[in-house]
Amino acid sequence: MKVTILGNNSALPAFGRHPSAQAVTVYGEVILIDCGEGTQIQMQRYGLKWRNVHHIYISHLHGDHYFGLPGLLNSMSLLGRTAPLHLHAPAELKPIMDAILEVADTVLCYPFYFHPLPDESAMITDEPSFSVTCFPVEHRIKCHGFLVERKTRGRKIVPEKCNEYEIPAAYYDYLKKGDDYERKDGFLVKNEWVTEEGPSVKRYAYCADTLFTDSFLHVIKGVDTIYHECTYLEADKAKAEARYHSTSAQAAEVAKMAGAKQLLLGHFSSKYKELDAFREEASAIFPNSLVSIEGTVYEV
Amino acid sequence: MKVTILGNNSALPAFGRHPSAQAVTVYGEVILIDCGEGTQIQMQRYGLKWRNVHHIYISHLHGDHYFGLPGLLNSMSLLGRTAPLHLHAPAELKPIMDAILEVADTVLCYPFYFHPLPDESAMITDEPSFSVTCFPVEHRIKCHGFLVERKTRGRKIVPEKCNEYEIPAAYYDYLKKGDDYERKDGFLVKNEWVTEEGPSVKRYAYCADTLFTDSFLHVIKGVDTIYHECTYLEADKAKAEARYHSTSAQAAEVAKMAGAKQLLLGHFSSKYKELDAFREEASAIFPNSLVSIEGTVYEV
Repeated sequence: MKVTILGNNSALPAFGRHPSAQAVTVYGEVILIDCGEGTQIQMQRYGLKWRNVHHIYISHLHGDHYFGLPGLLNSMSLLGRTAPLHLHAPAELKPIMDAILEVADTVLCYPFYFHPLPDESAMITDEPSFSVTCFPVEHRIKCHGFLVERKTRGRKIVPEKCNEYEIPAAYYDYLKKGDDYERKDGFLVKNEWVTEEGPSVKRYAYCADTLFTDSFLHVIKGVDTIYHECTYLEADKAKAEARYHSTSAQAAEVAKMAGAKQLLLGHFSSKYKELDAFREEASAIFPNSLVSIEGTVYEV
Repeated sequence: MKVTILGNNSALPAFGRHPSAQAVTVYGEVILIDCGEGTQIQMQRYGLKWRNVHHIYISHLHGDHYFGLPGLLNSMSLLGRTAPLHLHAPAELKPIMDAILEVADTVLCYPFYFHPLPDESAMITDEPSFSVTCFPVEHRIKCHGFLVERKTRGRKIVPEKCNEYEIPAAYYDYLKKGDDYERKDGFLVKNEWVTEEGPSVKRYAYCADTLFTDSFLHVIKGVDTIYHECTYLEADKAKAEARYHSTSAQAAEVAKMAGAKQLLLGHFSSKYKELDAFREEASAIFPNSLVSIEGTVYEV
């Protein structure tokens, strides 16, 4: 599971940094989280294909988190998308999207499903290879974080070994579940001879615009990687609080309390040109803290 | 008067080209025409200050002509704009903008005036230094072109000469109007000794998404520069017509019929990587045809 940062800045684009958007890649599926202005261009730039996107999640309705969405949805239609697309967003976005399409006399040429986010924590997507759980965070307007969980796919087939032991491909699904195979001649092929350990469960938490709070810790406990907003440095803690944002130190506190393995810092105020201080401040509290960089792909 | 191209592509961003947006600069005032996704970033890139923008004109409500508008309006507010801003756009945009602000619990911190475009040709802005006239063009949905006219500022003062003839600065406004100056000693200072010819009237026509038509020729007759969409080459004339767009040859025909001095070609389909053929096709009909290039500043 990987995360590609498409936008790591807060409200204003500045210093070449873009508003919030990121892509979580799970077994080839691209899950888009937030979609600030310019996301479709950032996706082009970093080689992310819209054909691999089937779910988009919008944390809240401040423009820097969704103004790129209408353009992306339109472009997919113009490019002849046929696969269904699921948008998970605050309910208030629905009439806006409807109006935007209506005034353009446009009908998207693919099945489009709008799923309003629930107020409370809930699993909102449960696909064979991943699930997504949303959870409320504390911002000036209603805002959600998202927990993406990559499911295990069971044992991984080693085709050469299977051929060596003459196991028919039709039996591979049983091997993935851990079964042994008994040949017609009575010889028992042990599962571990022909499979390897499969991809493990991985968990990634996106903690969108929020005050410093422990209210959602129970949802993200033990995640592998946490992305937490840190609009400001600790020196601007009062400003952060007044604007319902967090500091780098506070992001690190959350990562520490959650027992995460890695922290990605993002959503930087445009008042900061250099970002090194964010890493320094966070890593004093949570050593494995990284400043998220646009176009960089992070292993969860 | 100058035009800076911020986006010269049609619906889809492609080959580094952006959706429609351009800035017309008149005596330091920046007039924004159309505002596709990413316009605020393009403005940063090409050094156009939002502080110099007081009027924005939106031709129609296909997303590639206005999806950058909400972000730009928001950013100006976050950056503490206090000067009034006038948006001239199809009436149907108003409830969408209102809804976008409402769901974000945002109030723009500057006076914001929404002016719905009239159905017929009309002068919609009349400032001391320029005027803007809108005119209907023929597209799939209601769409307008805009004629920007730079007014003359009268004769241009030559301060050294005025000093030489001892003319008080309080009299400069009369000099600009062409008056001579009679000194107390009875000596008559002829206007042409102390002034030069001022900037002339200039006219620029933006012909947004439209079928090939002569329906608005009477409005743009004799303009200095015309920007005309040419989504396709003549080989795709049928496609152009079906989609209410023009070809490069048709854009040239319009420039020729209008008696324009210069033609800027733009709004290219993303099916074309190279654009040379657009210039070749147009210049066979109207020699002074240019392919508009993003970031390039054209003298009207």
